[in-house]
Amino acid sequence: MFIEIEPSSEIPIYTQLVNQLIELIAKGELQPNDTLPSVRSLAADLGVNMHTVNKAYHELERKNIIRIIPKSGAVVSEITTPTDEQLATITHALKTVLAESTVYGMNKDEVLSIALTIMSDYKEG
Amino acid sequence: MFIEIEPSSEIPIYTQLVNQLIELIAKGELQPNDTLPSVRSLAADLGVNMHTVNKAYHELERKNIIRIIPKSGAVVSEITTPTDEQLATITHALKTVLAESTVYGMNKDEVLSIALTIMSDYKEG
Repeated sequence: MFIEIEPSSEIPIYTQLVNQLIELIAKGELQPNDTLPSVRSLAADLGVNMHTVNKAYHELERKNIIRIIPKSGAVVSEITTPTDEQLATITHALKTVLAESTVYGMNKDEVLSIALTIMSDYKEG
Repeated sequence: MFIEIEPSSEIPIYTQLVNQLIELIAKGELQPNDTLPSVRSLAADLGVNMHTVNKAYHELERKNIIRIIPKSGAVVSEITTPTDEQLATITHALKTVLAESTVYGMNKDEVLSIALTIMSDYKEG
């Protein structure tokens, strides 16, 4: 499981960790029912604070992407149909990034082409 | 200029403000060279702290989306060709949201259809 943290990024470390774990699941490198490393071992591997990993795991649990099972650890959830709240979250996030791409002068076809390339690495929903 | 802040959202208020101003520019409701309201008046209109508006304006300046001109105020920048850094920012943001949509079980065609609908409200780059 390859995770790379950029300490100098403007994106908080726990958010980087959340996003990279979500990408690993989208790519199928982490499968439903896989157990994530313990907070202690992942923190040690990445050289980050245990509190940071713990915060990332709880954020993933809040999004229903993993379940935290006492004594067993963090387990990747099954992928199901999106809830209305999840659809709203994605729509909102797309509005933001697509508005930003427009303001940067990116062409719509160019943005769609980048999106298609990215999605080709991800599992079919 | 219609801006709606949700104080109960998990998204920080200054980020909501940044995102909504970017959307207004993408929609053409704010045009290049338009002057944004003063920090004081926008803060009063929205019922938020002046510091929050100031932080949002400086974030937009950092992204080169507005220029802050002493004594004149905040002015919307011209839209030009995206820099490599801007392309990288958009690609990174798309990776994150598309991974999240995959993990939520959304179908790729469904995501593209939502993206096209959103972009139809935005200017051509």
